[in-house]
Amino acid sequence: MKLLEERICRDGVVKSKEILKVDSFLNHQIDVELLEQIGQAFYERFRDRKITKVLTMETSGIAVAYPVARLLRVPMVYAKKGESINMDGERYVAEIPTLTKKKPGKVIISKKFLSKDDSVLIIDDILANGGALQSLISLVETAGANVAGLGIVIEKGFQEGGHRIRNLGYDLQSLAIIDWMDPNNGRITFRTADDE
Amino acid sequence: MKLLEERICRDGVVKSKEILKVDSFLNHQIDVELLEQIGQAFYERFRDRKITKVLTMETSGIAVAYPVARLLRVPMVYAKKGESINMDGERYVAEIPTLTKKKPGKVIISKKFLSKDDSVLIIDDILANGGALQSLISLVETAGANVAGLGIVIEKGFQEGGHRIRNLGYDLQSLAIIDWMDPNNGRITFRTADDE
Repeated sequence: MKLLEERICRDGVVKSKEILKVDSFLNHQIDVELLEQIGQAFYERFRDRKITKVLTMETSGIAVAYPVARLLRVPMVYAKKGESINMDGERYVAEIPTLTKKKPGKVIISKKFLSKDDSVLIIDDILANGGALQSLISLVETAGANVAGLGIVIEKGFQEGGHRIRNLGYDLQSLAIIDWMDPNNGRITFRTADDE
Repeated sequence: MKLLEERICRDGVVKSKEILKVDSFLNHQIDVELLEQIGQAFYERFRDRKITKVLTMETSGIAVAYPVARLLRVPMVYAKKGESINMDGERYVAEIPTLTKKKPGKVIISKKFLSKDDSVLIIDDILANGGALQSLISLVETAGANVAGLGIVIEKGFQEGGHRIRNLGYDLQSLAIIDWMDPNNGRITFRTADDE
């Protein structure tokens, strides 16, 4: 998505070879006009999948998932992290596989909001090692529902999450895939359609 | 807002005299069509205030603030709770006054996203004792910006937050104000326009 790549180059800040800050338009501060176009792009890619629900992760996935759910005319659900004291009733729980922390985090969703009849589009803002995305897939499949597709705004193509999830057979589509970032000059290299 | 009150009566669950669950349409699962109408209602109430930014609190304010920011054509910012390890640079910090926990929580916003030239509409989903809302007001005023108005989806009128914030002179507008909830029969009594 050309507009998104241009925005990442203009306003993203390369903090290291692995860390990109996009807090001026994608998380923390949200450029709603850009998010509307991102939502439209996901809608066009997944509109024919008979989606019944859009699932995302709190916090930073919510503003991305919102316009997608609006265009698809389905409810949106966000999984909660950790042990949410405000949640009663039965719930699905999945662990977030992690490379860095000793204790894996948990994601939770009330059983009321996912059923075996659902066809779910999973949306998130950033994909790196894929732990968060795998935990969302796990919630959907534990509920007996179908993962109809996965949409990511920015994929760090130099980390393994995207590769691993595509290898499992899921239809994962990222609007921008970064192959390389140089913290010395701030340059960001995107994967082109020919590379995919 | 009639549609909202009807929805609260239909799908809200009165857990006690003070606790109302609205997780099937307002937080956790989001009815995006309802949120669009809520966003429109806030837009009509605040459109003439020369708003430059919509501010909300992570997590549950984000889906409410999104359509308001889109209609006003301004960026949306969400304040983060706790010590966010991903935030570098200078930031404004405010404490959340609390009646229940021993240690008050903190809300944080990067200084990049609030300036003295901003006229800010603060949006949140639920108002009870008003601690969270007061911390957002504090962030805006510490930045030297103007609080142009405050919009709340559901105000618990039997708790003191709304009264206290209006007494401080702020233009706080709630789309539904609950005066009374009866956990024995699940009945919810709303404040009518005549009571306000």
